[in-house]
Amino acid sequence: LSLFEISTPAALIDEARLARNIQRMQHRVTTLGARLRPHVKTSKCVEVVRHQSLAGARGITVSTLKEAEEFFDAGFSDIFYAVAIVPDKLDRALVLAERGCALTLLVDSAVAAGAVASSERCSVDVMIEVDSDGHRSGVSPESDELIAIGRLLDRGAARLKGVMTHAGSSYELSDAPALRALAEQERSSCVRAASRLREAQLACSEVSVGSTPTALSAGNLEGVTEVRAGVYAFFDLVMVNVGVCEPSDIALSVLTTVIGHQRDRDLIIVDAGWMAMSRDRGTQRQSRDFGYGLVCDLAGAPIEGLAFTSANQEHGLIDCSDLPEAEVDRFPIGTRLRILPNHACATGAQFPSYQAVDAKGGLRPWSRFNGW
Amino acid sequence: LSLFEISTPAALIDEARLARNIQRMQHRVTTLGARLRPHVKTSKCVEVVRHQSLAGARGITVSTLKEAEEFFDAGFSDIFYAVAIVPDKLDRALVLAERGCALTLLVDSAVAAGAVASSERCSVDVMIEVDSDGHRSGVSPESDELIAIGRLLDRGAARLKGVMTHAGSSYELSDAPALRALAEQERSSCVRAASRLREAQLACSEVSVGSTPTALSAGNLEGVTEVRAGVYAFFDLVMVNVGVCEPSDIALSVLTTVIGHQRDRDLIIVDAGWMAMSRDRGTQRQSRDFGYGLVCDLAGAPIEGLAFTSANQEHGLIDCSDLPEAEVDRFPIGTRLRILPNHACATGAQFPSYQAVDAKGGLRPWSRFNGW
Repeated sequence: LSLFEISTPAALIDEARLARNIQRMQHRVTTLGARLRPHVKTSKCVEVVRHQSLAGARGITVSTLKEAEEFFDAGFSDIFYAVAIVPDKLDRALVLAERGCALTLLVDSAVAAGAVASSERCSVDVMIEVDSDGHRSGVSPESDELIAIGRLLDRGAARLKGVMTHAGSSYELSDAPALRALAEQERSSCVRAASRLREAQLACSEVSVGSTPTALSAGNLEGVTEVRAGVYAFFDLVMVNVGVCEPSDIALSVLTTVIGHQRDRDLIIVDAGWMAMSRDRGTQRQSRDFGYGLVCDLAGAPIEGLAFTSANQEHGLIDCSDLPEAEVDRFPIGTRLRILPNHACATGAQFPSYQAVDAKGGLRPWSRFNGW
Repeated sequence: LSLFEISTPAALIDEARLARNIQRMQHRVTTLGARLRPHVKTSKCVEVVRHQSLAGARGITVSTLKEAEEFFDAGFSDIFYAVAIVPDKLDRALVLAERGCALTLLVDSAVAAGAVASSERCSVDVMIEVDSDGHRSGVSPESDELIAIGRLLDRGAARLKGVMTHAGSSYELSDAPALRALAEQERSSCVRAASRLREAQLACSEVSVGSTPTALSAGNLEGVTEVRAGVYAFFDLVMVNVGVCEPSDIALSVLTTVIGHQRDRDLIIVDAGWMAMSRDRGTQRQSRDFGYGLVCDLAGAPIEGLAFTSANQEHGLIDCSDLPEAEVDRFPIGTRLRILPNHACATGAQFPSYQAVDAKGGLRPWSRFNGW
């Protein structure tokens, strides 16, 4: 089957772009002297993550225990579950560790640290989450709490492995100097937390930082042992606005078919609605609002004059008022288009599988999973 | 397993609320003299739709061929695929018809009508989509195109069954008189289209209208034979703002667990991020912006002072700055909460299955499906 024959909407992965993106990040992190532990929450796809491993990645990062279980079953055994563990989820996590998974857990509270340390099942490596930018979770690198949690993890079934941080506010930036400064803040906060633990005679071998924008902007990674990043494998329009990639780097797209026209209102209607694109409007507050995505031709090149302005569940509404009237005839019912997504993690999650597109236009199904 | 034991995040269906919502819509449509053909795109769940059928619904409406196939395999045989068919999808649709499904297709163009009529496989019923409110797709009830399409469908393998419209702009309203007026516009446009086809000696037995807000607001349905509506089974916060339900009617919620706190920033962090809630921010431009959802206790009652303001993929950030400081202690790590969704169709789609909660708190898994 070809791009003209498969059922739409479909999620396509451009294999050449994927390979280029993976090489770029791997080369950069290696050059800066750290290991790369890709976040698999973006693709949730074994084939994509095998590409990352073959390129040199060491271990994976997951956002759910489902991801940990699926990837462990697929042969990945070095897994960092990078969302704070709660007592409720500990049993399920320890089952994986007992099965032989080198699973690392994350805590940012004494409650969770105490629960892990007092488990009477197997022992497990634990990282402490550090807040480097006030974005979400983690303890301050200067806090007493950091040391208190470290001491809780220096006994019982827990082994304190290190510290981690995620400068998620990098997604809100769009100029290189600010990104570079935030990357340095992310690095120095995490290194500072590691130093304080070591000064308190606590082990802290791992210093893990990362987000796609900071990883691509860091001037140096002194003291950092590993970098985590996810969306770089696919990239997306949010990352275009942040300034770390071009539309021509985006490896994920949604294949769609024109199903109608509303000539009076300059609309082309396609069968990719928000169920296919996701409701992620991440570019809404950025420098360029791409609506529900950037409309491209089958080769993946953007089409001037088309704007994906609105979406219902299974209808996408593409405004063609910037096209000369006669040009609309280039897009009759049945025309196939590719839409680049605002946010690859969200759009990918709308699909049960991808179609990988090779350089010759050949398609191969790559499965993904969803749920928890 | 109970609500305290199942893995989170999880999608819960309150069976009592579901039953009440289904009864309410069925009673209303029956009283107005029409049949109800529920749209299953909201739940994509056989158990929910069986409830609707048992309450008196006649046939179902679907938004994808996957829905048609899944529900046909589950025993539903009267299915209206209410998105304009394109030639590419015709073969797949006709397979269902050949298998014995009473499948009705939709067209709003001469291209699609011609393709259906010239098929040499089995014959199939076809509806014409009418645009009643400039919301999306369909032909004008006063247009020559309507009659031209009707003539195309009066021959070959196609059987012209009737006209349909969907006043989707009802979602943008919030007062009863405007909703009632739009419901009348939806009704009269569709009845007018039917009259014009009949005047042209074309068969038009079915006049199908609907959206949840207009169905609940119509003063009369004279000339209408069937009503389609979907979200009423679950309701959601968008519908609360539209004014057709209360939060206590919402049957779908997301069960989540508190995984951390950021005391300095008055944040409670839960394990329902946007992957669980969806990125649908449908209440953002309405009278009350509910953020990523309305935070409730385990019994489903809203908790004053908590606002679900932000979300990452697997982290929900609940602002508790309106709570007295001591009150935050009511929500320690491990606390379980229920979040009512902005848009039930979008939130449901993030889950591979639901947990139905009966009056005694007992849980039963109800599967759903996604994809195309």
